Amino acid sequence: MEHIRKLAELAKKASGALSELSSDKKNEILLSIADALEENRESILRQNAVDMEEAKSRHMTAALLDRLMLNEKRIHAMAAGMRKLAALDDPIGKVIGGGTAACGIKIIKKRVPLGVVGLIYEARPNVTADAIGVCLKTGNAVVLKGGSEAVHSNREIARISVRAGEKAGLPAGAIAMIGDTTREAGTYMMQLREYIDVLIPRGREGLIQAVVKNSTIPVIETGAGNCHVFVDASADPDMAAAIVINAKTSRPSVCNAIENLLVHKDIAPTFMPRILAELKQHGVEVRGCERTRAYGDVTPVTEEDFYTEFLDYIIAVKIVDSVEEAVRHINKYGTKHSEAIVTSSFSNAAYFERAVDAAAVYVNASTRFTDGEVFGLGAEIGISTQKLHARGPMGLEEMTSYKYIVEGNGQIR
Amino acid sequence: MEHIRKLAELAKKASGALSELSSDKKNEILLSIADALEENRESILRQNAVDMEEAKSRHMTAALLDRLMLNEKRIHAMAAGMRKLAALDDPIGKVIGGGTAACGIKIIKKRVPLGVVGLIYEARPNVTADAIGVCLKTGNAVVLKGGSEAVHSNREIARISVRAGEKAGLPAGAIAMIGDTTREAGTYMMQLREYIDVLIPRGREGLIQAVVKNSTIPVIETGAGNCHVFVDASADPDMAAAIVINAKTSRPSVCNAIENLLVHKDIAPTFMPRILAELKQHGVEVRGCERTRAYGDVTPVTEEDFYTEFLDYIIAVKIVDSVEEAVRHINKYGTKHSEAIVTSSFSNAAYFERAVDAAAVYVNASTRFTDGEVFGLGAEIGISTQKLHARGPMGLEEMTSYKYIVEGNGQIR
Repeated sequence: MEHIRKLAELAKKASGALSELSSDKKNEILLSIADALEENRESILRQNAVDMEEAKSRHMTAALLDRLMLNEKRIHAMAAGMRKLAALDDPIGKVIGGGTAACGIKIIKKRVPLGVVGLIYEARPNVTADAIGVCLKTGNAVVLKGGSEAVHSNREIARISVRAGEKAGLPAGAIAMIGDTTREAGTYMMQLREYIDVLIPRGREGLIQAVVKNSTIPVIETGAGNCHVFVDASADPDMAAAIVINAKTSRPSVCNAIENLLVHKDIAPTFMPRILAELKQHGVEVRGCERTRAYGDVTPVTEEDFYTEFLDYIIAVKIVDSVEEAVRHINKYGTKHSEAIVTSSFSNAAYFERAVDAAAVYVNASTRFTDGEVFGLGAEIGISTQKLHARGPMGLEEMTSYKYIVEGNGQIR
Repeated sequence: MEHIRKLAELAKKASGALSELSSDKKNEILLSIADALEENRESILRQNAVDMEEAKSRHMTAALLDRLMLNEKRIHAMAAGMRKLAALDDPIGKVIGGGTAACGIKIIKKRVPLGVVGLIYEARPNVTADAIGVCLKTGNAVVLKGGSEAVHSNREIARISVRAGEKAGLPAGAIAMIGDTTREAGTYMMQLREYIDVLIPRGREGLIQAVVKNSTIPVIETGAGNCHVFVDASADPDMAAAIVINAKTSRPSVCNAIENLLVHKDIAPTFMPRILAELKQHGVEVRGCERTRAYGDVTPVTEEDFYTEFLDYIIAVKIVDSVEEAVRHINKYGTKHSEAIVTSSFSNAAYFERAVDAAAVYVNASTRFTDGEVFGLGAEIGISTQKLHARGPMGLEEMTSYKYIVEGNGQIR
């Protein structure tokens, strides 16, 4: 554990130097890392193969294997992500407010880095590269703790990034990868308030809740997406079916995929048989409420299912009596991530937008759009499901803080 | 404890209705509360007298008694604060971003309330009125837990606010005052994640650290102000002395008062005798480093003193060799609140501004200016010393979150 403290302490030291690097220097570092990731793609793929083999021997689901797997295309995507970051505006140092107070002091509100960002995450090794890129661009040092399932891939990506970064002028210690993937190492890391300014967990609900409960470092909750589509009585059935199938099956392992379908009782007699058939065609297991089960051969749904982020080809289905009931259900079981209504009713759309408590509320579109890229943030380090600091996709600005600079000529109060 | 859970649950319910009140209705409620506080000033003063008597019998310091004491003027100031809030712009519902994505979906980023704000605070009973005002203005329900020393004053202010507010249309349960002032009640409250969205501790370092360590609700750290003035070699001695005396003695019990003086060794021979004399004149006890003690009859300072927010007529003094040493000292012992340099050197000023990690960094002005009013926020619910969400004085916008509304006509991804 002393080793983890040492890494965090070095990251804190590096963050001072890092916060003073020019935008050009930071971009040069990002471009060097991008090149290095591509040049070393074979060694990354070799390490990923080790992880994949172990994962298969542990019988991981196909959805989880998909999250873990790297290929040439995905490595190019990581490198392209770094290059894209280099091309974006640097938020650090921007003056975002201020003025001259009555007594004559000048106040300048200025964006500064957060300092040291800690990331505890699972599975997807491309998160390692994304996190390094976003943190360096915003002048933050980063302490990474990936999951055991991706340990070989993560270490290799970090090792390559450190080497290429430092050659281009990155302060030593600014990128730290914790080798110890045990839960104890994570719990220890969560107490290092002295060195780590913000902790971002990315992964499944269990991981995120453990971080929220145990961390004394301020946390940004991310990612757990127990999302719903509600098909209202007045929905266009073709549109509703297309949205449900897209939101459930286009990539079930990601957080903006849906896990639940709510259907208004008045449209159920025509819509339910059709959507059950389409879901079956797409290989989705349906777990339904009693009324749903009247429409087909459906497993009974449990209370537990309504709380579960399946991240798989499984969906919980419930027939509701009203838009109000749908909203109550969503606010009770959802994780405040992305929630959709399909409706032709202006007033029901407005009510749903207002009453659903979530980062992104959709009318007549798929929840799959919740994404930093689509929302115009240019980059994304995760999707916040809390209300403090950042909500929804987090890009560069969300990885900054600010400070007030006050200049006078002797003013006292 | 069941009683506390019930209050929080009711506040959560009320927050839904509260978030939908019009700006006019919220202002009407604030004005009604302002009138009621003034009309009932005698009963508030009677309850405050009970608190004051108990405090005196427990031999509280003069500084703490000053924080606790209410008089007609302070009650008028509470009411004036409410009226001022009513006159301010309502941040809720403001569109703060958005656009149309390539696929045609319309994205609207909109300010929304945080939901339920929990406040755990000590001493000053006017915080009760301030917190109620700021929370209602921003559409948030509020759960208050004041300290035992102000329990009679706090209960009376809350009781009057609830009665007047509800008469004007405030949803029942939107203002909750926890009667139980024990530490256990506070710890229990910190676990009510289901109902409370944000927890703001206000008070001394010990209270704030207890909340940070034990809360599973996201916390905004506030207020602990272990602040410094650094008198550089090139400082104008008159300006430096005026700033030190003002920052230390104009109101020692508040968080933007200084607790420490750092003096550059080159100016010490002339500046130190003078400032020691002035501090003595103002009744300030000096605890100094060995080099400081060469200049007068000064108590030896301890490591512990450098970490302490005295909130009293006590100051820790240290002679340093350079601006770099001053910055290192501040970043080690400070609480990231307000830090000042007095200097004639442009480059030392720039270095200090950049390198000191604090919410407000001052050049040639008193730290006492760190205040929502002075910084143009119109209102203040506390001063954040963390980097997440809000830093420095928190006004209305800092008490909000946002949500993304996405409207389409069937887009899928």
